[in-house]
Amino acid sequence: VTRPSPLSGFPEFLPSQRQAELAVIEQLRRTFELHGFANIETRSVETLEQLLSKGDIDNEVYTIRRLHGSDDDPGTGLGLHYDLTVPLARYVVERAGKLEFPFRRYQIQRAWRGERPQEGRFREFTQADIDIVGRDELAQHYDVEVVAVMAEAMSQLPVPTLEIQLNNRLLIEGFYRGVGAADPFAVMRVIDKLDKLRPPQVREQLVETVGLTDAQATQCLGLATIRTTDTSFVGRVHGLGVEHPLLDDGLQQLADAIEGCQPFVGDRLRVFADLRIARGLSYYTGTVFETRMTGFEQVGSVCSGGRYDALASDGRTTFPGVGISFGITRTLHPLITRGLLDSDRSVPSAVLVALVDEVTRRASGDVANRLRARGIPAEVAASAQKYGRQIRYAERRGIPFVWFPPRPGDSSGRHEVRDIRSGVQQPVDLESWMPPERDLHPRVVLKEQP
Amino acid sequence: VTRPSPLSGFPEFLPSQRQAELAVIEQLRRTFELHGFANIETRSVETLEQLLSKGDIDNEVYTIRRLHGSDDDPGTGLGLHYDLTVPLARYVVERAGKLEFPFRRYQIQRAWRGERPQEGRFREFTQADIDIVGRDELAQHYDVEVVAVMAEAMSQLPVPTLEIQLNNRLLIEGFYRGVGAADPFAVMRVIDKLDKLRPPQVREQLVETVGLTDAQATQCLGLATIRTTDTSFVGRVHGLGVEHPLLDDGLQQLADAIEGCQPFVGDRLRVFADLRIARGLSYYTGTVFETRMTGFEQVGSVCSGGRYDALASDGRTTFPGVGISFGITRTLHPLITRGLLDSDRSVPSAVLVALVDEVTRRASGDVANRLRARGIPAEVAASAQKYGRQIRYAERRGIPFVWFPPRPGDSSGRHEVRDIRSGVQQPVDLESWMPPERDLHPRVVLKEQP
Repeated sequence: VTRPSPLSGFPEFLPSQRQAELAVIEQLRRTFELHGFANIETRSVETLEQLLSKGDIDNEVYTIRRLHGSDDDPGTGLGLHYDLTVPLARYVVERAGKLEFPFRRYQIQRAWRGERPQEGRFREFTQADIDIVGRDELAQHYDVEVVAVMAEAMSQLPVPTLEIQLNNRLLIEGFYRGVGAADPFAVMRVIDKLDKLRPPQVREQLVETVGLTDAQATQCLGLATIRTTDTSFVGRVHGLGVEHPLLDDGLQQLADAIEGCQPFVGDRLRVFADLRIARGLSYYTGTVFETRMTGFEQVGSVCSGGRYDALASDGRTTFPGVGISFGITRTLHPLITRGLLDSDRSVPSAVLVALVDEVTRRASGDVANRLRARGIPAEVAASAQKYGRQIRYAERRGIPFVWFPPRPGDSSGRHEVRDIRSGVQQPVDLESWMPPERDLHPRVVLKEQP
Repeated sequence: VTRPSPLSGFPEFLPSQRQAELAVIEQLRRTFELHGFANIETRSVETLEQLLSKGDIDNEVYTIRRLHGSDDDPGTGLGLHYDLTVPLARYVVERAGKLEFPFRRYQIQRAWRGERPQEGRFREFTQADIDIVGRDELAQHYDVEVVAVMAEAMSQLPVPTLEIQLNNRLLIEGFYRGVGAADPFAVMRVIDKLDKLRPPQVREQLVETVGLTDAQATQCLGLATIRTTDTSFVGRVHGLGVEHPLLDDGLQQLADAIEGCQPFVGDRLRVFADLRIARGLSYYTGTVFETRMTGFEQVGSVCSGGRYDALASDGRTTFPGVGISFGITRTLHPLITRGLLDSDRSVPSAVLVALVDEVTRRASGDVANRLRARGIPAEVAASAQKYGRQIRYAERRGIPFVWFPPRPGDSSGRHEVRDIRSGVQQPVDLESWMPPERDLHPRVVLKEQP
């Protein structure tokens, strides 16, 4: 028998770590549901035709196939989805007649990519997506809503400060057109390199590759330097003296989105209008959204999305959408593996009911059931060892309280509870005792980064 | 563009149907956590070595592979898990040093099998497993606990009456040995055919294939007919006049398990000692457990499990376990696709906040936020259509209440709420109004089978 070992790129957590992940998932779900987003789950597989329709992802797709299967076996021509957007698009077209539009959905599922694993890149990972999908049209206010809901959700998570960066494709396209660029998307492609190249090199490419004049290149680079926490970017863009109707639309849309996020700005969340970001070159047609986690910029954007005017189409009907995807694994894995994020128990139990002897196991079980009836997670000790060892059983799991039922022959019938952190043990009433609210469920603990 | 179509064996639900599934999952989780079971998730893939170590499942395993990948690509030699037991065994051995034993875990995840789809058989399905795993040893009382926890969980589900059938492998092995059978497992193999063959045929095989005498065969068939709702099976077995120490152990264990379930017996759940069932021939070594859903016997057992004295081993240490797996998809899919199980809304929203006009969208959004702050899921109308159309928007989604903010210039500042089921519309207080508890979240509806 060989001892199994972890598979690179397929992360797994210990129980206390999973508690922390689960708490994050529940927090996200709660926010999404309060805003009326309905949950769906899609199958894990799509046809290769669907998976490959979105472009340059071919080499990352995992196909599935029956072991020893023949070519016409179930599974042939199927692959695991690499995001939750392709499945959503297919689900919407397949069930359009049975859905109500605008269709507001959230989806929290795994996805798979055959990538080389590295920091922030996994072969199997979990995402939490919200999208609003319209039929034929989708009002602009949904961009503001989706952005604000995700900002609210992220502002409540037990993670380092998150920085949302917002931009709008109409804004930059309009600006480049207003500048006089013949091919605004070529400008985007070059400006997008500001991540890797220094501004003089980018300027050179704008002039030599895209054919801008030096003055035009200066204006485009000027736009890319604008980054504000409020709507003051509007005045700064106007100060560049460029005009175009698309630019006006984009400025208004971005200003609305920035304002929609303001209620959630604080220590946990910052929001910027950042006129440099474009989020790739295809796909998005309006709002674009990305997010960096402070101290973990190297993992890339942990939450991204935007508006796509043609999420899906069945040939006759087009379904525009706006959506954002939060990378649960990408956000939590670096925190958990560094020991920065965890929970304070490896079990849900708030109480371990001690065992006087094996004969009275049922009596201890009855105590546990009374506690459970009040919503208190409880378990009974594994065996009737000395109390010191039963307390150790609780300590090793992080269970905060040990309950001692009366010993047989103890005419007082007195129950006692010990808080194993303080060592204080007190008589309690079986019918009414409750742990403090903060001890009822495992608590998520985020340590400051050293 | 081809319209996508469903893939046979890969079920998906509409949003209101998913609500029902989600409610079932949450109910299961709640029960498992109240009993101190910790959640884990394992990766979806295992090495083929792990997957194939359990026997005759080869042809059902889906392997994964990168599209255009080469032989040493990530994924080669990996397959999707076909249950949650193989991953648990691997997880426990891999992390034995970091887990506390007995390790009590629940796991709710998908699994995949390359089977021909049919009623009750899927290529992708969701299971909810609870297991307790010991190191070196695992006390017998854990069998009773796992059985009782799953009985409690199932007794609360919105599904047709479930019938648990319990048996014990020691009981039947001891009985067959006591009868004088040289190979008790050969007897089990034949008795197991009582599903498909008539008793005279089984008797013939017991005599001709296994080599029992006619009297021995009669005794074995006699045991297989015993089925009781209480512990009276003990007396009936004793009445057959067979004795063996294993038989005594098995009778005691089964009696304990039957008694542990009694608190949960009622309209929703029945429990039987059924001395015919064996749950396959390898693997289980004590308690065995299976469950039929009334009216849906053809889908097979919806919840199965038992004791396995060697769940896992790393060569030096053996990890015995006892566990039960509830088939979420197998149970819910036939109910949902027949329209018997659903929820009463396609969205979580309890309230639709109407829109007076597009200019006051923010005011309507503020109303929605006040409701959300009290835990009331709410959404704002899509557009400022006539109120009749906004009410229709709520109706189509099953949202029970429509909230009307004051119209601009209405000096009363009065908010009104309409219950769209009764049509009653009343003035309400923005700061205190709550919907009835039963309307706060979507309700799961189980119809009687016609």
